Amino acid sequence: MSFNSFGRLFRVTTWGESHGPALGATVDGCPPRVGIDESMIQHWLDRRKPGQSRHTTQRREPDRVRILSGVFEGQTTGTPVQLMIENMDQRSKDYGDIAEKFRPGHADMTYWQKYGIRDYRGGGRSSARETAARVAAGGLARAALAGLLPDLRITGYMVQIGRHRIDRARFDAAEIERNPFWCPDAGAAELWAGYLDEVRKDRNSVGAVVEVRASGLPAGLGAPVYGKLDTDLAAAMMSINAVKGVEIGEGMAAAELTGEANADEIFPGENGQPVYSSNHAGGILGGISTGQDVVLRFAVKPTSSIMRPRSTVTKAGEPAEIVTRGRHDPCVGIRAVPVAEAMMACVLLDHYLLHRGQIGAGPVPLG
Amino acid sequence: MSFNSFGRLFRVTTWGESHGPALGATVDGCPPRVGIDESMIQHWLDRRKPGQSRHTTQRREPDRVRILSGVFEGQTTGTPVQLMIENMDQRSKDYGDIAEKFRPGHADMTYWQKYGIRDYRGGGRSSARETAARVAAGGLARAALAGLLPDLRITGYMVQIGRHRIDRARFDAAEIERNPFWCPDAGAAELWAGYLDEVRKDRNSVGAVVEVRASGLPAGLGAPVYGKLDTDLAAAMMSINAVKGVEIGEGMAAAELTGEANADEIFPGENGQPVYSSNHAGGILGGISTGQDVVLRFAVKPTSSIMRPRSTVTKAGEPAEIVTRGRHDPCVGIRAVPVAEAMMACVLLDHYLLHRGQIGAGPVPLG
Amino acid sequence: MSFNSFGRLFRVTTWGESHGPALGATVDGCPPRVGIDESMIQHWLDRRKPGQSRHTTQRREPDRVRILSGVFEGQTTGTPVQLMIENMDQRSKDYGDIAEKFRPGHADMTYWQKYGIRDYRGGGRSSARETAARVAAGGLARAALAGLLPDLRITGYMVQIGRHRIDRARFDAAEIERNPFWCPDAGAAELWAGYLDEVRKDRNSVGAVVEVRASGLPAGLGAPVYGKLDTDLAAAMMSINAVKGVEIGEGMAAAELTGEANADEIFPGENGQPVYSSNHAGGILGGISTGQDVVLRFAVKPTSSIMRPRSTVTKAGEPAEIVTRGRHDPCVGIRAVPVAEAMMACVLLDHYLLHRGQIGAGPVPLG
Amino acid sequence: MSFNSFGRLFRVTTWGESHGPALGATVDGCPPRVGIDESMIQHWLDRRKPGQSRHTTQRREPDRVRILSGVFEGQTTGTPVQLMIENMDQRSKDYGDIAEKFRPGHADMTYWQKYGIRDYRGGGRSSARETAARVAAGGLARAALAGLLPDLRITGYMVQIGRHRIDRARFDAAEIERNPFWCPDAGAAELWAGYLDEVRKDRNSVGAVVEVRASGLPAGLGAPVYGKLDTDLAAAMMSINAVKGVEIGEGMAAAELTGEANADEIFPGENGQPVYSSNHAGGILGGISTGQDVVLRFAVKPTSSIMRPRSTVTKAGEPAEIVTRGRHDPCVGIRAVPVAEAMMACVLLDHYLLHRGQIGAGPVPLG
Repeated sequence: MSFNSFGRLFRVTTWGESHGPALGATVDGCPPRVGIDESMIQHWLDRRKPGQSRHTTQRREPDRVRILSGVFEGQTTGTPVQLMIENMDQRSKDYGDIAEKFRPGHADMTYWQKYGIRDYRGGGRSSARETAARVAAGGLARAALAGLLPDLRITGYMVQIGRHRIDRARFDAAEIERNPFWCPDAGAAELWAGYLDEVRKDRNSVGAVVEVRASGLPAGLGAPVYGKLDTDLAAAMMSINAVKGVEIGEGMAAAELTGEANADEIFPGENGQPVYSSNHAGGILGGISTGQDVVLRFAVKPTSSIMRPRSTVTKAGEPAEIVTRGRHDPCVGIRAVPVAEAMMACVLLDHYLLHRGQIGAGPVPLG
Repeated sequence: MSFNSFGRLFRVTTWGESHGPALGATVDGCPPRVGIDESMIQHWLDRRKPGQSRHTTQRREPDRVRILSGVFEGQTTGTPVQLMIENMDQRSKDYGDIAEKFRPGHADMTYWQKYGIRDYRGGGRSSARETAARVAAGGLARAALAGLLPDLRITGYMVQIGRHRIDRARFDAAEIERNPFWCPDAGAAELWAGYLDEVRKDRNSVGAVVEVRASGLPAGLGAPVYGKLDTDLAAAMMSINAVKGVEIGEGMAAAELTGEANADEIFPGENGQPVYSSNHAGGILGGISTGQDVVLRFAVKPTSSIMRPRSTVTKAGEPAEIVTRGRHDPCVGIRAVPVAEAMMACVLLDHYLLHRGQIGAGPVPLG
Repeated sequence: MSFNSFGRLFRVTTWGESHGPALGATVDGCPPRVGIDESMIQHWLDRRKPGQSRHTTQRREPDRVRILSGVFEGQTTGTPVQLMIENMDQRSKDYGDIAEKFRPGHADMTYWQKYGIRDYRGGGRSSARETAARVAAGGLARAALAGLLPDLRITGYMVQIGRHRIDRARFDAAEIERNPFWCPDAGAAELWAGYLDEVRKDRNSVGAVVEVRASGLPAGLGAPVYGKLDTDLAAAMMSINAVKGVEIGEGMAAAELTGEANADEIFPGENGQPVYSSNHAGGILGGISTGQDVVLRFAVKPTSSIMRPRSTVTKAGEPAEIVTRGRHDPCVGIRAVPVAEAMMACVLLDHYLLHRGQIGAGPVPLG
Repeated sequence: MSFNSFGRLFRVTTWGESHGPALGATVDGCPPRVGIDESMIQHWLDRRKPGQSRHTTQRREPDRVRILSGVFEGQTTGTPVQLMIENMDQRSKDYGDIAEKFRPGHADMTYWQKYGIRDYRGGGRSSARETAARVAAGGLARAALAGLLPDLRITGYMVQIGRHRIDRARFDAAEIERNPFWCPDAGAAELWAGYLDEVRKDRNSVGAVVEVRASGLPAGLGAPVYGKLDTDLAAAMMSINAVKGVEIGEGMAAAELTGEANADEIFPGENGQPVYSSNHAGGILGGISTGQDVVLRFAVKPTSSIMRPRSTVTKAGEPAEIVTRGRHDPCVGIRAVPVAEAMMACVLLDHYLLHRGQIGAGPVPLG
């Protein structure tokens, strides 16, 4: 069943709670002879690490990954790779308020209703900390993809915080790594910095929209009808904490288009591969990649752990008020960017392996 | 792997092409002793059937379902249920144009690039006809749910066609069955009728947004982290032909909210179950149902089979122009409504069974 | 979950009851462009068909397979292949005795205890008729394997009926198709014919041992630790009705060997592939094929439907006596031979595809 | 895909190599609120631990398990349980001979042929050390079963070493824990001790047969046709290192029986549950438990790592001779006993949860 797994041939199971001894990812099905070491995975974890600017949680975790299995003399062996991150910043603090009361908008209540028990320390399994394990698995997937699809580039970035969207005309990929928001629009980044300072001062939080783009992917990955590439990508993004919507290509706006406007016209290209006049489809038709950029977006709701009082109930069922103190992200969407890239890498690798398994070859040329 | 399957304990595999001898759904894992006969499933198929108004394809298919296995003396036996629909309206017609040229925006090209072969008759496997099998499976799921969760109600309806949205203030559930659009707003339905006549006359097509609501669901269904209820619902909806975006609760608009505005405050309710001041979450927190209505929306792109000329290429790689003649839906979103209800039913039944398997009980009360 | 499915990339779900309208196999994940038609699958079904000699059940079923999907112009398309066999010989007969009483040694009782309902007509889902669907799926697997592994040969044969074993010194593969027992030893076949006549006259039944051999398989198929080739083969054989034991290579007799005697010594071969002095391992080490013949055996218990009176209970819980009249096999093991071959074909194809997916290449040479 | 996983609702993925930093089991789907701590799992690991008598490998591993996740305040939370065992006894020794040469009868060669790389230290992933992770997972399964099926007892024991079988007439369950062989026959245990001394002095090894019995299991667990209880048990046992054959009930000997002799006659019992005159079926009919004892046996081949010279080849493809020095088991079957019990516990828990999910109730009574 694997409630906590994703992928089929490249299969990732994450485990661990926010304030337990450790968390990690058990990765089964990674191809053998992929060059990998801890520093290569650490590189991606460091991008996700909290506390890198004033706009993310000030919890400081070194997030050092250890490879416990499946790698020998710098190469994967084809057996399960265990990626473990020990939790260091387990301050002995008083969790009493969260232990007894449920945070509105948080998984506190539903975990309790489902399991009748919850590890309330730092959100336990529902903590955004779980996503560190996904980033580690994504680092391994990227290493495998580097050999299999050397032209593939996966890039995530923010396109909206609160009501403030980027200006697509000012899109500059080089900007993405230059600001703490993964923002491709320098002007928007500046505006967001001021806006988030206000939100934080207001003891509030705010939502965001992240876009992820994969270029250099061959045509033919994916499958009808439930093994669709977009189905798996939508599931992968929706599985990230706090995500409430996912779009491929035109996304929700596709509703407003006519068939004529939405059609990506086709022209003959090189090597029997078609070229397209546009990419309304977001690189996926009928659940299968077209060879164009795969483009998706998802919305992250505002953190529910805020320092403003909200009505709630206690475990005993009594009415109460709650204020969540502590080191919380004013915009948790920021840290979702590297997580989404990692999920994209895992899904694309999985579909590459599935395609190779069923078909054993690249895209069929025309002519 | 099951590229064409969904669900875990209630597992549905659909099979069949648009113009092959038959299509259907193989359903494994249905609970035993569910009262079912062909007429109960036919009821749901008839709602989806094309040709019921001038606004859907004029292809006329009786879509008669036959139960070939797994049912004995009017009850499921716990063994696989085979639901078969024979294709009747296989006009001997000339598919030549579609056979040789690829329709922009259609799976024609990607099927070819993946498999090097495609059943081009009526779109083959990528046809919306495949969704008849899902509706049949959904009919079986509804019959099982009727016994397990008698208070559950699943209702789909259109909220947007092209740029024209319903007015939420005029929402009337009773209207949904009274117009050919499953529209809960009588005024919008009238406007859409005129608008779609224009679109059709213009030989064009247009997109839409569908909303589905499940009320009467207990708290506790779903699971972290990849077996989330919203993950599975997003995948289920994204797997429907032409869907390009999925939203739970506030969906993409969650990006614009503050944590304070987005929090659904909690108050003590009856029998130790909480009540909420609002439902921004769409009935799901941390991947687990809250007991509130589960609310999702998805966007359907406009049909790519239009009677307006578009640039394309032939199988030989030559540039060409294509005009798709035939009986196509000006707004394929209309027929997606019963399909989405069926997918919702299947996912909820599956999660109910999974919860019963792992936990064996209903939601844990407070106090 | 798929209680009725096997395989991962080549995934088969069988459905249907003995005396329902039809039964079949839904095959998902078959590679595209495999040349196939109904006559190619019929060939394998005809080998399994009952009523071909006096030593199998006299129920006469034409067992005509129809391909309902996934094949276009004589080739698989990569989408699900539905293989349906309609049940013709549904004599309107009185099932009263089986309907009310449980046959000792039969699934009658356990189906009832599990589901609280059973399709008692001809054994319903537990009937050996279900294996026709497996043979059909195996026919498709063989067609795919013919292109992928042209040297592969899968051969099943009987090595024991009752206490009577073949003489390995007289093993002649050419004999297998010459007698109604798939017996490679002409002398044993003659002896078995007389023995089975006695068993039948005695209104009794008897068990058997079947051996299946796959030659021409490359090294490297399979995987540690639960995706082992022998694990999947053992499961595949144990899933066949009435099978009570499975052996790979030396099988149970491995217990009696010393490490020295059991070691298959290794010598340099051609093209960097090793050769072995013996094959105690049955072609599998550490769950992975060695390149030698894969050899397995399984025991089939005697049919529990016999015409001798046995004590039992009724559905009402009253003590009773039962005599099963009708057209039953004195040695159901005979018909298990083509079924086992089919299962072997499905498992080997699945592992070939899995290997190609994860690794993408054939066996790694030495040197 | 999960090459290294087993189970469906109670899903275990083992990871780790013999001489890597650690190994363990990631367990997903364990029911919540199961009382568990490290000492409870340690209890089972200690039973399996090598070096407890002169008849098992003298490698000394403390095998201390750590619970890294999924347990809070002494109870499972329903989230993944990570059970880690650090490898302590990683002597810095010269693996040169094993590194360059392949051991006949060992997975050395096939891992190389499949992956083109192998962690040769102590057998890497193919080492019997991997089974420690299974025993840990089995300890958790037992804790869950204690609450769900309090009458269940799972007992493994040796019934044969080399050619020496126990005398069933002297079977005494109390003996099992009194000798280093888990032997229920005191006389056989004494004989085996002398025999194994000889084998060891002879620098050889020998095979064995283990039997496992589960009593107190309700009727109704399992499912047709590929989710059979015996299918899953056969797979579970065959997945243990060095196992070459598996039998349920009469096993291979069922071939010699007549239908009359093999039928377990049925009589009315208490509470509408039937009783049986015998248990040839080994407690499973049609893939579903009967309520009688589930009885299985499996054969373990002799260890291939022996101190007698055997012909082999080097990685370079040159002919060579190999003698495996080191701390190897003369009869690896002994340590398989607790492993098989653990696998049985995991499979039975999984089937219990699956049954509860699909059916939601215990066995249906007669009358």
